[in-house]
Amino acid sequence: MLYLVGLGLSDETDITVRGLEVVKKASRVYLEAYTSILLVDQAVLEAYYGRSIVVADREMVESNSDEILRDAQSEDVAFLVVGDPFGATTHTDLVLRARELSIPIQTVPNASIMSAIGGCGLQLYNFGQTVSMVFFLDNWRPASFYDRIKENRAIGLHTLVLLDIKVKEQSLENMARGRRIYEPPRYMTVGQCAQQMLEVEEDKKEGVYGPDSLAIGAARVGGKTETFVAGTLRQLCDADDLLGPPLHSLVLLGSRAHELERDYAREFAVDKEIWDKMWAEQYGKQ
Amino acid sequence: MLYLVGLGLSDETDITVRGLEVVKKASRVYLEAYTSILLVDQAVLEAYYGRSIVVADREMVESNSDEILRDAQSEDVAFLVVGDPFGATTHTDLVLRARELSIPIQTVPNASIMSAIGGCGLQLYNFGQTVSMVFFLDNWRPASFYDRIKENRAIGLHTLVLLDIKVKEQSLENMARGRRIYEPPRYMTVGQCAQQMLEVEEDKKEGVYGPDSLAIGAARVGGKTETFVAGTLRQLCDADDLLGPPLHSLVLLGSRAHELERDYAREFAVDKEIWDKMWAEQYGKQ
Repeated sequence: MLYLVGLGLSDETDITVRGLEVVKKASRVYLEAYTSILLVDQAVLEAYYGRSIVVADREMVESNSDEILRDAQSEDVAFLVVGDPFGATTHTDLVLRARELSIPIQTVPNASIMSAIGGCGLQLYNFGQTVSMVFFLDNWRPASFYDRIKENRAIGLHTLVLLDIKVKEQSLENMARGRRIYEPPRYMTVGQCAQQMLEVEEDKKEGVYGPDSLAIGAARVGGKTETFVAGTLRQLCDADDLLGPPLHSLVLLGSRAHELERDYAREFAVDKEIWDKMWAEQYGKQ
Repeated sequence: MLYLVGLGLSDETDITVRGLEVVKKASRVYLEAYTSILLVDQAVLEAYYGRSIVVADREMVESNSDEILRDAQSEDVAFLVVGDPFGATTHTDLVLRARELSIPIQTVPNASIMSAIGGCGLQLYNFGQTVSMVFFLDNWRPASFYDRIKENRAIGLHTLVLLDIKVKEQSLENMARGRRIYEPPRYMTVGQCAQQMLEVEEDKKEGVYGPDSLAIGAARVGGKTETFVAGTLRQLCDADDLLGPPLHSLVLLGSRAHELERDYAREFAVDKEIWDKMWAEQYGKQ
């Protein structure tokens, strides 16, 4: 059996009781560690599970899945995924390959940023499609998120923006020289995301949002130190100190927002006066 | 402290380790049991937790929240919610009241139908806003879901439809006579949902979807007996036997669907030939 086990969002105790039973009895345990991270180290997980873990990087999952799936027709293999196995990304290829090999599959769901973001006070019913924001480079500034946000905003919906992480990346020089030396991990902050969003709006000039648009920055959602900061995109460009360490996400508000959402999120406002003013001008009118 | 603890989607072992610790040490434990249900009885939960649980119905949560929050400034109160505390519904009022009373709040997230539905093979990035379907009555057929689906379909997105449950409902006669006698619980099936959707399309005639539109019925998502059935809305009207017992949900496909989604979900098709034909005609063209 191939078990896809969600680990939840924060630390070793966020696994479900059922998930923990699977991990303890599986023949082999893999941890997918390139689309998201927990806020604790692998060693903490291993001590907690009483098991050693193989960290599966992107290359292994995408090119060497048969090693992960080896003998899973008759043995139990646990593939651990931060959040929910179907949360921010999916492992469709791995499951399709398992099916080809006649390996039975079972999923152990867990918390995902896609529902836990509700802790910011915005109703999940009012969210449109989720988008991703990657680190811009000088000559690579993918802006497809902008069209997706435009679609959401056109019908009044909030947009959850998931932020890039860079784990086990090589510098161009090390890659060219074939040196397996990796850069320190990087996690995009709310400030960087808000800044990139405003740059793209300045380029495109379609008025999808602007510096005064309201948004909520979120840090370590689902964890004990979960933090939300609400304000305009301009304010969120400088709110990283308030938010603290990674992981960060951002929600851009849609106009269909409800007064209860305003009151709930107001608690997190950088400046309650500005929050009230911008809300009155732009939101809650549908 | 007020703890909002998600229980996950299926049985007593879906609680997280952190959630279980909270339940074991809290002074009082409430279970919100009117927006969703687990697939196991209260007695099973009580035996597993080693605690007695107060079932909180809608009236208690909405009108008597101060009893739930009593002394939570200094004691720990656990408020258990099926799925994720912010999943299908929110308990905004309870949290706002707790804030007024200066009660600290902590959330223990868990799996939600909103991410676990990814098990059907559709990418969560391609979902628009989630809608709800209630049991129609002769003179009450709320169809706001139709406009929401229209918005999602206009931009090619899938729609998750959450289905009504009726727990602790009184008949009109018993209500009029003030008798606290409750009807047996009712859970909407995928067949009933598909039927109501088609009836509303017949009324409105806007061509938002039709009998040949592809959808996926889902049953007991996240549980060990999780089942998906894929087909046209017409086929899903008669697929309840394949799906089995509650809870059910339904996903209507959007045109932005990807080939990987087609291949993954095809496994669940009532009739793979019809699935392929309808897909080729209607989907995956963006």
